[in-house]
Amino acid sequence: MNEALATRYRNFLARAAELSDLESAVALLGWDQEVLMPEKGVVGRAPLAATLAGLQHEKLTAPALADDIAALERETKELGEQGAAQVRELGRLHRRAKNVPGDLVRAVAETTSKATAVWQRERADKDFPSFVPLLEEMIRLKRSVADAVGYKDDPYDALLDEYEPGAKTKDVAKTLEDVREFLVPIVKAIAERPVPRSDFLESGFDGAAQDKLGREMIQALGFDMTAGRLDVSAHPFTSGIHRGDTRLTTRYKDDLTMGLWGTLHETGHALYEQNLSGELRRTPIGPACSLGIHESQSRLWENLVGRNRNFWKAYYPRVQEYFPQKLSKVSLEEFYRAINLVRPSYIRTESDEVTYNLHIILRFEIERQLISGRLAVKDLPEVWNTKFKSFFGLTPPSADVGVLQDIHWAAGYVGYFPTYSLGNIYASQFYAAATRDMPQLEGDLARGDLLGLRDWLVDKVHRWGRMYPAEELVRRATGGEPSTADFKTYIRTKFGELYSL
Amino acid sequence: MNEALATRYRNFLARAAELSDLESAVALLGWDQEVLMPEKGVVGRAPLAATLAGLQHEKLTAPALADDIAALERETKELGEQGAAQVRELGRLHRRAKNVPGDLVRAVAETTSKATAVWQRERADKDFPSFVPLLEEMIRLKRSVADAVGYKDDPYDALLDEYEPGAKTKDVAKTLEDVREFLVPIVKAIAERPVPRSDFLESGFDGAAQDKLGREMIQALGFDMTAGRLDVSAHPFTSGIHRGDTRLTTRYKDDLTMGLWGTLHETGHALYEQNLSGELRRTPIGPACSLGIHESQSRLWENLVGRNRNFWKAYYPRVQEYFPQKLSKVSLEEFYRAINLVRPSYIRTESDEVTYNLHIILRFEIERQLISGRLAVKDLPEVWNTKFKSFFGLTPPSADVGVLQDIHWAAGYVGYFPTYSLGNIYASQFYAAATRDMPQLEGDLARGDLLGLRDWLVDKVHRWGRMYPAEELVRRATGGEPSTADFKTYIRTKFGELYSL
Repeated sequence: MNEALATRYRNFLARAAELSDLESAVALLGWDQEVLMPEKGVVGRAPLAATLAGLQHEKLTAPALADDIAALERETKELGEQGAAQVRELGRLHRRAKNVPGDLVRAVAETTSKATAVWQRERADKDFPSFVPLLEEMIRLKRSVADAVGYKDDPYDALLDEYEPGAKTKDVAKTLEDVREFLVPIVKAIAERPVPRSDFLESGFDGAAQDKLGREMIQALGFDMTAGRLDVSAHPFTSGIHRGDTRLTTRYKDDLTMGLWGTLHETGHALYEQNLSGELRRTPIGPACSLGIHESQSRLWENLVGRNRNFWKAYYPRVQEYFPQKLSKVSLEEFYRAINLVRPSYIRTESDEVTYNLHIILRFEIERQLISGRLAVKDLPEVWNTKFKSFFGLTPPSADVGVLQDIHWAAGYVGYFPTYSLGNIYASQFYAAATRDMPQLEGDLARGDLLGLRDWLVDKVHRWGRMYPAEELVRRATGGEPSTADFKTYIRTKFGELYSL
Repeated sequence: MNEALATRYRNFLARAAELSDLESAVALLGWDQEVLMPEKGVVGRAPLAATLAGLQHEKLTAPALADDIAALERETKELGEQGAAQVRELGRLHRRAKNVPGDLVRAVAETTSKATAVWQRERADKDFPSFVPLLEEMIRLKRSVADAVGYKDDPYDALLDEYEPGAKTKDVAKTLEDVREFLVPIVKAIAERPVPRSDFLESGFDGAAQDKLGREMIQALGFDMTAGRLDVSAHPFTSGIHRGDTRLTTRYKDDLTMGLWGTLHETGHALYEQNLSGELRRTPIGPACSLGIHESQSRLWENLVGRNRNFWKAYYPRVQEYFPQKLSKVSLEEFYRAINLVRPSYIRTESDEVTYNLHIILRFEIERQLISGRLAVKDLPEVWNTKFKSFFGLTPPSADVGVLQDIHWAAGYVGYFPTYSLGNIYASQFYAAATRDMPQLEGDLARGDLLGLRDWLVDKVHRWGRMYPAEELVRRATGGEPSTADFKTYIRTKFGELYSL
């Protein structure tokens, strides 16, 4: 690399580090607001958040950075594979920021703020028609964003790209169609089988004891508590604030399920954030690869481990010790069947491993049509209910458990939903590869040793950050093309046995 | 105001708001680091803090802001009193930032980082000579800062101005000399009187109960817990993060004194931050006036209220209810005498109302000489011990309880110490004025009603922010010139009675 190029690359990385630090500040502010900010703090927090967003935009679209990116993009061979990835990643963010006009960004922010407030009210009132004008506005704005960002085949590509860089709508559609055709008959078959007991999980679990158990579990999963925290918030989330500081949250209700599997889910996200490469932190390829890959980590620990019979061979006795009055007479097998109960239901967030992806696919199919203009917002409930009936054999009785249940569209998260299903699919593929690489894995789980699996994920997934696009990361980690095969095998085997399919 | 000027003033305020938001972000990061950041987070937090400091400097020295300030300074009459104050305050910060070269700022930061680490070690080892080279370097750098900032009479003015805007060294020196001459004979006289009992405060106070009592007390003082928080940290502090979010911290030991009076002290700071004008927040005159005025608020609540016999008439029974085993047999009068014990001691932070200012005056006299070059760092211990003997009649047995006890010089806080004494003096003057305005004040305290005093302070001090320099604020609040008279009367009356002087 010649002197001039080296200087330019150094400057580029310094600007990227500054942007990464701003992102960390925003993350900390967000965590603080969700977890412990006093109620009246919101009056000062809102303008502060807007100022930091403005600074991020200013720095990301700075002409000097644009010059550096343009110059470095002409020399990617000189920069080597890693340097080229750095330029690719910041270039992508720079172009998105530059191409979307400030007025449009502000309009989305404003409509989000109005729409989420109205959505909250109308969901409570089960009143979709009153929500229509704001949702129409949001869809119109997101379509404008897609047009501003630009796309080749499908405007939805431009929205998807924000959450799943490089993914193409037509590939995702093919994948999810495949999954849908696989799942619908299984859901129908299971719906005809007897429902196992699960009432013993539903109440009487003390929050303080759940918290203690949760802390024990996340450390068993290999989360380093000297480089992170566990707190309580209304909506669980994980924030990788910066190197050495990853924070997850959970919540406790009277039942065991929400708290414990919520914690396992967030621990999956948190392990990913905690084990991103320390050296790459503060560079463009430092962050997690994509939302799909992120979700693969949470779902792997929540489901492939957290609803695995072998895992509970090791840990169920511990749960019984925490809650003897509730569980001393419940056998491991009864517990295992209860935590793997499959039942068509209206609410995505309460759904099981088998039906979950159908909830996602329904949303994905609908939002593609909304963005392409083939579906009008006012016709949404009818389309929702028709699809729902065909997927689950049920018709939602009201909008609050139907089309109004998720905040995503009100919040402008269009293109986000499919990453949940990609996560489930990737999770199965990673787990299958880990099992091939470590034939003793199930035995390790049964002995309570989870660190081998964690280390495999660190080595194959976590430490790479954004070095490779998601599909390439999957190839490198698993040795195979991204595919739904492992997911199907997993579901067929596990639930075939559980429900005698 | 003409159109062009109005536009310029609007732009100026928008830039000021951005700077205020950056300050809030820095404050939140600092609070988080002291209170709950995981141990390993420091690796990511240090560069993040440096980036935000860099952004603050970039924004504060931006040429466009310099232009606005220069133009507005020519039109202060047009801007009115408040507009002129806005320009004066941001102009002052802008010039400080612009005049101190980046290399010097970095050198101070680097030396601070080294010197505080070495100071910690050498204090433990009671080894002053090993600390000399770094302290020499720090004094040299701070003198360079003074030269860069500029001054008329005394280089120390330029350092003092950072903490106490507008204060002049020669005025402060005159004030503190006056206080010294007043206090030395009183300290000598008290040292000859019998020492009241205070052993019952020294141990056996449960931390959880102290915390509960503290929360009750800060709310009695009128702190709004929906617009703030109380947490625990190694070193108590208060951070007014932004409008609606003021956070204080405290710590609990086995004794009652550190926790309770620490909380009262920080509540004084916190009430000030919480009651700064909401409308002025995010403007240059939004923050607190000066460190001296800030300290006047903490000391007023800690001492003039918190060690006042009438106040404890109302609240001592409550303390007894929290700690019956410790205090049920200790009378109000015994308690009152114990919490007002005066005794010459080596450590500033553990000293009482009478001796405290002598600790400060000693440091102020020494640091003036260090900055002027009349005193060499290597001669510090000798000068310290000689002065100490003449003030307190004692000679520190070793450097850890003498010249090495405070972090301030290692941390580069030169010019900071005198603000502690100014705070004590202002506190007495405010309290005397409040008593004149509200003759029923002592009766209110005895009934436990503290809100009248709080409201007086909000009206006369808190809500004005930085609208007026400290001395002008004192004039407006009290109707008199800043003076040591009320402080002397307070000390003479209270301790004259307690020690039969």
